[in-house]
Amino acid sequence: MTNEGTGNANDQPQPYQANPYGPNPSDFLSNVNNFQLIDSTLREGEQFANSFFSTEKKIEIAKALDDFGVDYIELTSPVASEQSRKDCEAICKLGLKAKILTHIRCHLDDARVAVETGVDGVDVVIGTSKFLRQYSHGKDMNYIAKSAIEVIEFVKSKGIEIRFSSEDSFRSDLVDLLNIYKTVSKIGVNRVGIADTVGCANPRQVYELVRTLKTVVNCDIECHFHNDTGCAIGNAYCALEAGARLIDVCVLGIGERNGIVPLSGLMARMIVAAPKYVKSKYKLHKIRDLENLVAEAVEVNIPFNNPITGFCAFTHKAGIHAKAILANPSTYEILDPHDFGMKRYIHFANRLTGWNAIKSRVDQLNLALTDDQVKEVTTKIKNLGDVRPLNIDDVDSIIKDFHTTVNTPMMKARRMSDSEEPLDITTEQPNAKKAKK
Amino acid sequence: MTNEGTGNANDQPQPYQANPYGPNPSDFLSNVNNFQLIDSTLREGEQFANSFFSTEKKIEIAKALDDFGVDYIELTSPVASEQSRKDCEAICKLGLKAKILTHIRCHLDDARVAVETGVDGVDVVIGTSKFLRQYSHGKDMNYIAKSAIEVIEFVKSKGIEIRFSSEDSFRSDLVDLLNIYKTVSKIGVNRVGIADTVGCANPRQVYELVRTLKTVVNCDIECHFHNDTGCAIGNAYCALEAGARLIDVCVLGIGERNGIVPLSGLMARMIVAAPKYVKSKYKLHKIRDLENLVAEAVEVNIPFNNPITGFCAFTHKAGIHAKAILANPSTYEILDPHDFGMKRYIHFANRLTGWNAIKSRVDQLNLALTDDQVKEVTTKIKNLGDVRPLNIDDVDSIIKDFHTTVNTPMMKARRMSDSEEPLDITTEQPNAKKAKK
Repeated sequence: MTNEGTGNANDQPQPYQANPYGPNPSDFLSNVNNFQLIDSTLREGEQFANSFFSTEKKIEIAKALDDFGVDYIELTSPVASEQSRKDCEAICKLGLKAKILTHIRCHLDDARVAVETGVDGVDVVIGTSKFLRQYSHGKDMNYIAKSAIEVIEFVKSKGIEIRFSSEDSFRSDLVDLLNIYKTVSKIGVNRVGIADTVGCANPRQVYELVRTLKTVVNCDIECHFHNDTGCAIGNAYCALEAGARLIDVCVLGIGERNGIVPLSGLMARMIVAAPKYVKSKYKLHKIRDLENLVAEAVEVNIPFNNPITGFCAFTHKAGIHAKAILANPSTYEILDPHDFGMKRYIHFANRLTGWNAIKSRVDQLNLALTDDQVKEVTTKIKNLGDVRPLNIDDVDSIIKDFHTTVNTPMMKARRMSDSEEPLDITTEQPNAKKAKK
Repeated sequence: MTNEGTGNANDQPQPYQANPYGPNPSDFLSNVNNFQLIDSTLREGEQFANSFFSTEKKIEIAKALDDFGVDYIELTSPVASEQSRKDCEAICKLGLKAKILTHIRCHLDDARVAVETGVDGVDVVIGTSKFLRQYSHGKDMNYIAKSAIEVIEFVKSKGIEIRFSSEDSFRSDLVDLLNIYKTVSKIGVNRVGIADTVGCANPRQVYELVRTLKTVVNCDIECHFHNDTGCAIGNAYCALEAGARLIDVCVLGIGERNGIVPLSGLMARMIVAAPKYVKSKYKLHKIRDLENLVAEAVEVNIPFNNPITGFCAFTHKAGIHAKAILANPSTYEILDPHDFGMKRYIHFANRLTGWNAIKSRVDQLNLALTDDQVKEVTTKIKNLGDVRPLNIDDVDSIIKDFHTTVNTPMMKARRMSDSEEPLDITTEQPNAKKAKK
C-alpha cells in the first residue's frame, strides 16, 4: 500500500516488494508468483446444469485450453459412462502440452479403468465430512485411509501422477483431515487437495487451513473452491498466499450449482499480483474466445459483470472518472484492457458526464470549441440526459449543432435568444430535431 | 472447522463458537454479527454503463430496497444534474425507514446543495492516491484535510450525518491516510470510508488496513469494494471481520466497470456466518424480485452463475451429489434455498446421473421397481445421455417404457432378447420412439 504501483513488479519473492499488490512479504511460503492451473471445465464443468459436451466439442475445448496454457486438464471419470471413457482416451491421444487428469472416486475399480485410458494422472476424491460419511458413502476414517492407500499405491505402480483430495474439507474434522493427509503424503502422493465442496469457506479460514496443512505434508497442495457465497476467487488467492500451488478453475466457472473459480476472474486477480509470471505463462488475449466457445456450448450468456470479458468491464462513465482516465488510465484501472485483447471505453453519452469527456469527444470529431463552449454544450447534453437515455449519435448531434451555431454569425444571433430556454426535445429523435432546425 | 454445523449459530460474539462459519473468535472487533448495508444502486449503480433511471423507477427501487431492509440508501449527487437534485428531494420525502444519503465531492458548494435536499446524511469522498491527486483534482494532502474539515463542519452544523471517505484507498500512502482519518475522526465525523475504487485489493490486505484504521478512529468504518479482480465479496467479509461496520452494496453489483459488492452475493456470504442476524433483519425472499426489478431497468440478464438467484444456484447434477442431497440436503448445500424463496432441483436427466436420483424419480412417478430394476433403467438413461442432451420427458419415457416392459408378461419376454442390444435412438424423439414400440 505504501508503494504506489510502478508496474515494475518483481515476480520472485524478495525482501523488498516493488509491487504493493504482489505477494505479502510475511507469506514466505507464498506461491502467488509460482502457481499452476488445473482446468476442470471438462469434469466439474460437465456437472453444470446445461452441459452436454459431444466428443468433438470436448476436443475443441481441450485444444483451446492447451493453447491458452493451462497446466492440467481434468476430465470426467471414465466410469461415469461409456462415452466418458472413450472421450478420455481420445483426449489423451491428442498429444497436448497440458497434462491430462481424470477424476475418480476412491475405489480400486475406478482406478483400474482410469489408468488404462492413457491419462498422465489420476485425481482421487473421498468425502471426509460427517455429512458425506453419513449420507454419501457411509464409511469411517479408517476405511477411507485404507482405500486411499490401496488406490494410491496402485496408481503409483503404473508410473503416473496421483492426487488425493478430501471432499467438503471445511466441514471435516481438522484432526481427521491432517491424519489422512499425513498418511498419503508419506506414501508419496504427488498432490493433496482441499475442496470447499459446498462453497462455505471464507478467505482467512482458507489461509489458516492451507498454512496448517503445509506444515504436515511434503507434496504440493491443490485447492478447489465452489462459489456459492461469492468468495471462490478470494479464497483461491489466500490459498496461494498460504502456500497452495495449484488452483482448480473452469472457463466461466461452470460447475455444480453456481460453479467454481472462474478462469478469467482468477487471471484478473493474478495479473495484478504477479504480472510478469501471468503474462509470460498464459495467452491472456485468448480468454475471450475460450469463454465464447464454452458459453456457446453450454448455452449461457457471458455475465454482464464478468471480470475482463463482461461488456462493461472497461467502461468508464461518471464524469470525474472519465476526466482522470483521459489523463492517465491507471487512475481508475488496475487492469490494462490491452493485456486481454480488450479495449477501454469512455461512456460520455449520459447525464453523469463531465466537460473533460465531452471535450475529448469534440476533439475526436475534429471540431474547434473553447473550454467555455465545451462547458456550455456539456450542460445541454446533461439536460437531455436528464430526460432520456442518450446514445453517441445524440451527443454528436448536439455537439455538431452547437458547433455550427457558434460558428455561423446568423445562427449566433439566434442562439443568444435561445440560450435562456431549457432544452426540450423529449419526444423527438435527434435526427428529426436536426432536420427541423 | 472442528464443529460441524448444527445450524445453532450464535449471533453474539461468545468465547465458544457454535457456528464454524461464524465470526473468528480471534477477531474480537468483528462486526460479522452486527453489520449494516448501504445500498448504492441509485448512486454507484447509476454509473453502470446501461443505467438510466427515471424518477418513477428510482422511487420504485428505493421503496423495494427499503422493504428488503437495507439500512441506508445512497443517491447520486444533486450536483450531477438538475433532475438528480429533484429525484433526491423526491426520495427524501417518501418517509422510508432506511436513511437517505447522497454522495458528493469534497466541496463546500456541493455540500450546500446536498443539505438542502432533505437527506439524512452526506457521503463525502476525495481521491487520496498519487494517481488521483495528480490526474484528477490535483490537490495535496494539506488541501484535502482543509477541505474535509470545512465540509464536515458545515454538514454537522446542519444536524445530519457525515461520512468522510478517501478514494482509491489501497493505492494511497498509509501515513497520509491515517493522518486524514485521525483528523476527521477527531472533529466528529460519523463514519470514515475505505474505498477500493479500482478493485485491486485482496482479502488479507483489506483485513490488515481495516484493523489498523480501527486503532486510529473512534467512529464506524464503511467499506466500498469494486469487483474488477473478483474479490469484492471476500474483501467485504474480511473488512467486517476486522471491525468495519458498513458495506456498500448494489443490487446485482451494478456500478462503474463491472461494479461493486452485489447484494445477493453478500447475503449468501453473511447468512452462512450470521444466520440469525441476517434472517431477522433482511427480507431475503425479496432478493429475487429486487434483482428482477433492477435487471429489467438496466436491461441485463441475471448472470447464470449469480449466487442465490442464478438459474442453477440450487441445481445438483452429478449422481454422487444427487444421492446424498436426497438423503440430506446439507451434504452439498451450505445455503437453504427456502430461506430465499427458492427451490432445490435435482438434475437427473443426464449421463452423470446415478441410480439413487433415478429411484427418486421413479417414486415421484409412483411406479414400482426393485433396486436392481432401477439400476438397469439407469444404465439405459446413461446410454442415451451419452448420445445427446436429455430432458425430463426423455427420462420419464424411458422409465415408463421400462416399467411397462417389466410388468407385462409378453413384453417381459421381448425384453429378455432386447436387453443385450445397445440403446440407439439418437435421431428419434422419445415420443416417436414410444409410438413405434
